Amino acid sequence: MVADHSGSQPVDYSDDPAFALHRGGKMAIARTVPLDDADDLSLAYTPGVARVCEAIAENPDASNDYTWVPNTVAVVTDGSAVLGLGNIGPSAAMPVMEGKAVLFKQFAGVDAIPICLDTQDPDEIVDTVVRLAPSFGGINLEDISAPRCFEIEARVQERLDIPVFHDDQHGTAVVTLAALLNALRLTGRSAAETRVVISGAGAAGVAVTRILMSAGIRRISVVDRQGVISTSRSDLTPVKLRLAQDTSEWARAGELVDALRDADVFIGVSGGTVPEEAVEQMADDAIVFALANPHPEVHPDIARRHARVAATGRSDYPNQINNVLAFPGIFRGALDVRAPRISEDMKVAAAEALAGLVGDRLAEDYVIPGAFDERVAPSVAAAVTAAARRGGLARA
Amino acid sequence: MVADHSGSQPVDYSDDPAFALHRGGKMAIARTVPLDDADDLSLAYTPGVARVCEAIAENPDASNDYTWVPNTVAVVTDGSAVLGLGNIGPSAAMPVMEGKAVLFKQFAGVDAIPICLDTQDPDEIVDTVVRLAPSFGGINLEDISAPRCFEIEARVQERLDIPVFHDDQHGTAVVTLAALLNALRLTGRSAAETRVVISGAGAAGVAVTRILMSAGIRRISVVDRQGVISTSRSDLTPVKLRLAQDTSEWARAGELVDALRDADVFIGVSGGTVPEEAVEQMADDAIVFALANPHPEVHPDIARRHARVAATGRSDYPNQINNVLAFPGIFRGALDVRAPRISEDMKVAAAEALAGLVGDRLAEDYVIPGAFDERVAPSVAAAVTAAARRGGLARA
Repeated sequence: MVADHSGSQPVDYSDDPAFALHRGGKMAIARTVPLDDADDLSLAYTPGVARVCEAIAENPDASNDYTWVPNTVAVVTDGSAVLGLGNIGPSAAMPVMEGKAVLFKQFAGVDAIPICLDTQDPDEIVDTVVRLAPSFGGINLEDISAPRCFEIEARVQERLDIPVFHDDQHGTAVVTLAALLNALRLTGRSAAETRVVISGAGAAGVAVTRILMSAGIRRISVVDRQGVISTSRSDLTPVKLRLAQDTSEWARAGELVDALRDADVFIGVSGGTVPEEAVEQMADDAIVFALANPHPEVHPDIARRHARVAATGRSDYPNQINNVLAFPGIFRGALDVRAPRISEDMKVAAAEALAGLVGDRLAEDYVIPGAFDERVAPSVAAAVTAAARRGGLARA
Repeated sequence: MVADHSGSQPVDYSDDPAFALHRGGKMAIARTVPLDDADDLSLAYTPGVARVCEAIAENPDASNDYTWVPNTVAVVTDGSAVLGLGNIGPSAAMPVMEGKAVLFKQFAGVDAIPICLDTQDPDEIVDTVVRLAPSFGGINLEDISAPRCFEIEARVQERLDIPVFHDDQHGTAVVTLAALLNALRLTGRSAAETRVVISGAGAAGVAVTRILMSAGIRRISVVDRQGVISTSRSDLTPVKLRLAQDTSEWARAGELVDALRDADVFIGVSGGTVPEEAVEQMADDAIVFALANPHPEVHPDIARRHARVAATGRSDYPNQINNVLAFPGIFRGALDVRAPRISEDMKVAAAEALAGLVGDRLAEDYVIPGAFDERVAPSVAAAVTAAARRGGLARA
């Protein structure tokens, strides 16, 4: 006898449209070839399929022509840091991964497969993803907690010659940089002179810091719960210690409120709440990106009182910093040229392309395109492709 | 710089329709929910998706209602025994796995995902599949070589409470039993008295032997390249030793030709060629299932000269023993009741349902339905479901 589930309450959320929409899941497999009679079967399956298998065995490159692999991405999570919900495990993470998969398809025609792993051990995650790799053209890591995510991404990428991309890091970083480039343009600032405070040193905070530096923005203070991350602290993880070293020229010791005094830009990727008094003490024409969802670190109404440009992660306010602006086009471009990885240059190029779409319509409440702007994914893909070619990373 | 592939010849098989059909692969991801505007996005993705994730975190059973998982099957291979091509590795195996996946969808509405693993180590395969399990409702193992396949299937099933099914074993066994039940009926034989010779003790041979025994057919000799498998041999693997013990009452020592003398049934799942003289010495109204592809152990023209019923694995002769008659319906039924495994009873029930579809049209060249008989998958699924309920294996 198997376990009797009859004692548990049936789940009923029929008054919530999100549950109605999710019933049965959000995705399916579709065939792209006819299978209507024995002739079809003899081509798509035995005996015809054997000739295709033999061709790939002889010439591995043929798999790019005759399988779905080069257009696929595995969306892999361990369920350890799902949205703002925390460590809810692999099964409960599946709706997010399915959501990601259908966004990949909708916005960039990428066939993405959600993979929720029943392990949170970094070694096991790395080994598992590496073993899955022949099935996929790319790996999108998702909702894996920091600092494990840094190590896992680096180790998987080191062992594979297909792109590995932790979206919580780099998707957020690319879209944030895009919005920031436009906000700097709007407020007449140069990258070199802009002073930025980043609140949060998790996946997003670290990646945002890195991409800002790659774009020439160096005057950065990163703040975690213990205050500004600096080399004088003794409680730093290896990742935070490197951040401290890389920002040591400009990071001021102290608390978040100290760092914010006269700062040009606040980027919140931490949750929590920034006191209004601290926002008030920022420089004139301040830029406030409060990206925590659903509760921004600075409420948009407060941000508007003291800042010239305000952005959030929410769809119900202007300037939504939404990863969906980045990951579909980035993978589309990387897959199109069969790049073995996604370089920092490719990410910066994606951000610049995104920023460029705003063009002459640049305004306080329009520093980043909307999620349904149809130019987005093709522009990002083209920029990524071009950057891959420049960097010698294009194999097709 | 990445590797320069410009030196390799471009692959061009444009005169072969199998290659034309395979271009770009055979499958794709499809969404089943609208994603046309911000409202859709806010339900399918953030913030709406978070409520669904939370519900599953609170009540894991809810994943059966609100994700695609309960309708999915991973089609997993290590590429070690692909069709008759042998150990061609994971990438070259992909066209077969895609083919399997589209057959799952076409015949039973199951969403199957091809997973080709970059390891052939049993421990690593087992660990990897177990870690993938939260993503899938069932596991179809495919084209994994014997004897590794036996151990891998058993160990994965032991650690999971979703069905694990090595199709090369059990799919073949179910369809073979179905055809054999009808052939016995046609030739007026009882299961208990029928003498069977099975050539091949790999994945299919072992599973066919087991299912025949489960169906009451006990007078079986299994033959491998060294002759009849018997307890007097000292060269047996553990799996073959158990076969020898289980068939010791009826297995005659000797070569294949010795075993075939006066045998009622020959089942070939080995490749190679059986001499016509040996077929000639079988009992009257003999039954010859020569299932090796593309070259049956006994050519159908020869089989017809000496046997009353002949079946092959080929689509261009009558009585095709084709796994597609079994695996879609078996998984459909198992998923529908959320069975934690596929029991021997469920397999035998599937075979009996398949056999039953032939009904009054039973004839020498019609002992098994055709692959495109629309009754097949629903009948098999219903039989599997009923057997699961009888066995206490239905959880829905």
